[in-house]
Amino acid sequence: MIEGHGDDIFKYEGIRLNFSSNVYPKADISPLVEHLKEHLNSIKNYPEPSAKSLEEAIAAKLDISPENVLATAGATEAIYLIAQTLRSWQTFNVKYPAFSEYEDACRLYSYREDVLGNLMWLCNPCNPTGEVFEQSYIESLLQKHRYLIVDQSYEDYTNEPVMTPKEGIKRVNLIQIHSMTKKYAVPGLRLGYITAAVPVIRLLKGNTYPWRLSSIAIEAGKFLLSTQGAVRDMTEYLRQTQKLRFELNALEGLEAYPTKTNFVLCRLKEGKASDLKEFLAKEKGILIRDASNFRNLYAGHFRVASSTEQDNIELIEGIKEYLKK
Amino acid sequence: MIEGHGDDIFKYEGIRLNFSSNVYPKADISPLVEHLKEHLNSIKNYPEPSAKSLEEAIAAKLDISPENVLATAGATEAIYLIAQTLRSWQTFNVKYPAFSEYEDACRLYSYREDVLGNLMWLCNPCNPTGEVFEQSYIESLLQKHRYLIVDQSYEDYTNEPVMTPKEGIKRVNLIQIHSMTKKYAVPGLRLGYITAAVPVIRLLKGNTYPWRLSSIAIEAGKFLLSTQGAVRDMTEYLRQTQKLRFELNALEGLEAYPTKTNFVLCRLKEGKASDLKEFLAKEKGILIRDASNFRNLYAGHFRVASSTEQDNIELIEGIKEYLKK
Repeated sequence: MIEGHGDDIFKYEGIRLNFSSNVYPKADISPLVEHLKEHLNSIKNYPEPSAKSLEEAIAAKLDISPENVLATAGATEAIYLIAQTLRSWQTFNVKYPAFSEYEDACRLYSYREDVLGNLMWLCNPCNPTGEVFEQSYIESLLQKHRYLIVDQSYEDYTNEPVMTPKEGIKRVNLIQIHSMTKKYAVPGLRLGYITAAVPVIRLLKGNTYPWRLSSIAIEAGKFLLSTQGAVRDMTEYLRQTQKLRFELNALEGLEAYPTKTNFVLCRLKEGKASDLKEFLAKEKGILIRDASNFRNLYAGHFRVASSTEQDNIELIEGIKEYLKK
Repeated sequence: MIEGHGDDIFKYEGIRLNFSSNVYPKADISPLVEHLKEHLNSIKNYPEPSAKSLEEAIAAKLDISPENVLATAGATEAIYLIAQTLRSWQTFNVKYPAFSEYEDACRLYSYREDVLGNLMWLCNPCNPTGEVFEQSYIESLLQKHRYLIVDQSYEDYTNEPVMTPKEGIKRVNLIQIHSMTKKYAVPGLRLGYITAAVPVIRLLKGNTYPWRLSSIAIEAGKFLLSTQGAVRDMTEYLRQTQKLRFELNALEGLEAYPTKTNFVLCRLKEGKASDLKEFLAKEKGILIRDASNFRNLYAGHFRVASSTEQDNIELIEGIKEYLKK
């Protein structure tokens, strides 16, 4: 799906507050920006063909071997590369609702959907629901499917246990997808990586082409590994998210689902999320994610990422005003 | 092929002069670098999912419709996307010798090689030979094959006529690949585009995924379209290239092939290009492209891009010294 995702801020004028992507909107990205300013001359040469130095840095950080790591131009490239590489397995399934690209990638490579699909896709923590799945559920999927692909893009935004790459690479049929830019709140950069057992990574690398990552992305990735991330106090941020969910759920006409991460899935009991989105964008300069196009969700569903306490209050007030109309 | 391309400068220490990629090595990239410094904050948001604004800018520059344009993360992504999209056509052919990725991309998607392949790949101007093909030859290929894919990455580095996108999009079975970073000598950026008739572009776009280009790449692309390119005086640069070829060809023990672009394919009459490459890298700080891994070329073949007159002289002197050993 090319259109219809969140963070479609380029379509609107005058957006002041962006709750539409699951990225912390108040991050201070200046250390990375300053670092890149010093390294822009790297674009004068071809990048390393396979981003080897970045994969080595990721492996060192995770205490695994570079043979267990494949750097990608964002988690989305990872999803399509996995679907492409494993296409001879022909069947898939997804734990819905979930990020739409798993299904799209499989359909692009002519997979059939099947309850016992050879490829099983799980988003953990789950976009858009905010759930974090139990280890026992993941174990049961590993037993049932030829490959389990777990998209852990939001793993840095939860206090719940999520399987580490070091544990994950011990499973022969587990593929973990990681985002490098969620943690630092720079989704415009396009940077992620896959971790898996050596034979799986070798198979995936055999399906790649040279110079997939720009010199800037490689440089940025190495810098990001040395930093703390965008959110200074994760406990406080997740506490604010719980408060946001509680207050949204208290509104007449709205249901806000429990969340274990930094965003909240909501449902208007009446009316369409697209109308709420238009109202907030035009009247309040606030952007939310109309979530009605997630499979298994409906017209009233929308998703908001948590921001600062003050911004969250503005969001709640804006929604309140819409509901009173 | 991940390893074995040119510009493997990251493998060596102390390289002063880089003739190994076909990119003008003395370009002043500071206007782009300064522009990007001002726009690095764009990484804070997701990029446009399909790089629409960049495609519109490319189309405006070429005087064609955005529906005839697909922006890519470099010419190499374009090659793999084409092979992926058209894989049901099953057979291919390449005018050899040529950039190895056409063949690799087709093999990745299980095409069979066949003289009358449904997909025909042509590199024009040709890497590594420096040839520019006659229009009549291109017409004959358009008649013979279901799709003709012409990689025009070096189109800005020749005085010979090369088909423009405006002409090209009139042919229903022609796909033209363009590089945006060769002209400006910033291969680390990864930016290119495809032009073709509307139904072909639509088919290709249906095989893409969102956010393939970073915010930085999109911003850089729009800036590059407004600039003149890396080489101030193309006539003089190509004249220097002819002089380089003439002087290399005059060396005992060396053949330098005629060229219509900014690089020269050469053949050692005895010995291996890999030995020459090692000698120049280690003794002279000069990097050349060992071209022996191009199909239809042999152990003695190497390729050099033309640089400034002074640097070209240093290259010739270095090779002369090796040949005297």
